[in-house]
Amino acid sequence: MRIATFIIDGTRKVGVVSGDGLSIQPLDLSSAQSDAGILSIIETVAGGGALPSSSGPKVKMAEVTLDAPLPKPRRNLWCVGRNYHAHAKELSASVFKDNSAKTDEWPIVFTKVPECVVGPHDDVLVPAEVSTQIDYEAELAVIIGKGGKNITRAAAMDHVFGYTVINDVTARDVQIRHGQWDLGKSFDTFCPMGPWVATADEFDGTKTRVRCWVNGELRQDGPTENMIFDIPTLIETISRGIMLYPGDVIATGTPAGVGMGMTPPQYLKSGDVVRVEIDGLGIIENKFV
Amino acid sequence: MRIATFIIDGTRKVGVVSGDGLSIQPLDLSSAQSDAGILSIIETVAGGGALPSSSGPKVKMAEVTLDAPLPKPRRNLWCVGRNYHAHAKELSASVFKDNSAKTDEWPIVFTKVPECVVGPHDDVLVPAEVSTQIDYEAELAVIIGKGGKNITRAAAMDHVFGYTVINDVTARDVQIRHGQWDLGKSFDTFCPMGPWVATADEFDGTKTRVRCWVNGELRQDGPTENMIFDIPTLIETISRGIMLYPGDVIATGTPAGVGMGMTPPQYLKSGDVVRVEIDGLGIIENKFV
Repeated sequence: MRIATFIIDGTRKVGVVSGDGLSIQPLDLSSAQSDAGILSIIETVAGGGALPSSSGPKVKMAEVTLDAPLPKPRRNLWCVGRNYHAHAKELSASVFKDNSAKTDEWPIVFTKVPECVVGPHDDVLVPAEVSTQIDYEAELAVIIGKGGKNITRAAAMDHVFGYTVINDVTARDVQIRHGQWDLGKSFDTFCPMGPWVATADEFDGTKTRVRCWVNGELRQDGPTENMIFDIPTLIETISRGIMLYPGDVIATGTPAGVGMGMTPPQYLKSGDVVRVEIDGLGIIENKFV
Repeated sequence: MRIATFIIDGTRKVGVVSGDGLSIQPLDLSSAQSDAGILSIIETVAGGGALPSSSGPKVKMAEVTLDAPLPKPRRNLWCVGRNYHAHAKELSASVFKDNSAKTDEWPIVFTKVPECVVGPHDDVLVPAEVSTQIDYEAELAVIIGKGGKNITRAAAMDHVFGYTVINDVTARDVQIRHGQWDLGKSFDTFCPMGPWVATADEFDGTKTRVRCWVNGELRQDGPTENMIFDIPTLIETISRGIMLYPGDVIATGTPAGVGMGMTPPQYLKSGDVVRVEIDGLGIIENKFV
């Protein structure tokens, strides 16, 4: 099932996308529930409840504006750094070479503020006064369903509600100069998300393909099987001593091909369009302005 | 004014602490507002409104249990690393020596999840199965009032609602092994906060003194004038390109004297009691269990 958050007649709604992708069946939610996107549905289902009913008419996809499935996540998004072998290699000669973390032993985990999330086709604001090194990172994001602490690798996949696509937009200069990455990852609009959530019963995030184009040029193309730390390991790691909650987001890292890894580096500028596609899941495409 | 969040008869309330500290005057808030601690008051005052009225009787301090003033901050807490000269020096020979950030040029900013906040006298859970290097960090925390983006140093203090005391509890081994610090800082119960918020009109966080005792032994004692990056600089830095909101928390870093900096390092164990006092603000004291 694909569950989308969308805007119609100025109001945020949540619904189930039809098999052909041409329509959405809205779910019966209160306005407060709809306003939080799919969060209340995740909480309901994670608590053992059924999907809300849907008594209204279908709406045509062409008549809605898709929003981020979680327009405001419940807390900072968990994000994973250098989690594909080829990407770790492309940055090994960069300013990150002295980083003391042994990436083969433990994942690098940082965060993005929830307020930087925007919709799958929204504009991304280039903070030109703060950064001259804006970069893209195409990523598969895991949405946690059932919460838990000290979740084992073996049990981890039972805690996955579904998956979505994100672009972990990054200001490289800001990321680097502060040592810790949260600031350089958290500028307003720096997390396009969508186009919907594909539930884990129908979509397998462990075996798919992440691609990214800048102005139509293919830059990133990597299978999620090439993650250094797979999804169960990430869930086990982050939940060690830390309670995970329904609706938590874990962005699983980006394949090789970021602008910083090119020779010379090629950063994004106003007017660029970045498209991220994950096979079987969907596409987000955002203009940088 | 000192505003406290407290529990009485099993219910969370918010009120103004009397000058002698012996009683609290509860404010007239809905249960939903009270449940979020002082957040709604900050939002009201930041929006130009008046403090809510208080029509009920005073309650004795001895009859309440103080809670964290912000029992669940609106998003991850902003935290600053190595922000006192002597503390940066004590860690300069540690495993952090290769960190590529130039701490004299830009502050190190990371986060703690909102759910790790506990009250000023609550127990801190030692996650013995995850870490053997639990450490304390006594800190002054700034509570943002009026929100804003790209706030200048000159205007920064107008955005401060008040101050509180926190212990930025840290699992050093976890902090180090992941390269990024958010995980090692975010274990459940790792952010004791309180005992209340002192508003900026009556308390000056830029000129006070932060002390920490472990089992009665003084370990940390530093004036906030010794911060490498002062409070206006921290607000300017974090708000560059990132909207700050009423109720955002910025923990301003810890003075010298952490357990990791001792020779040999001395980490916390079950049964230890850590007390943090900030002159003119208050005391938090937590048992590690």
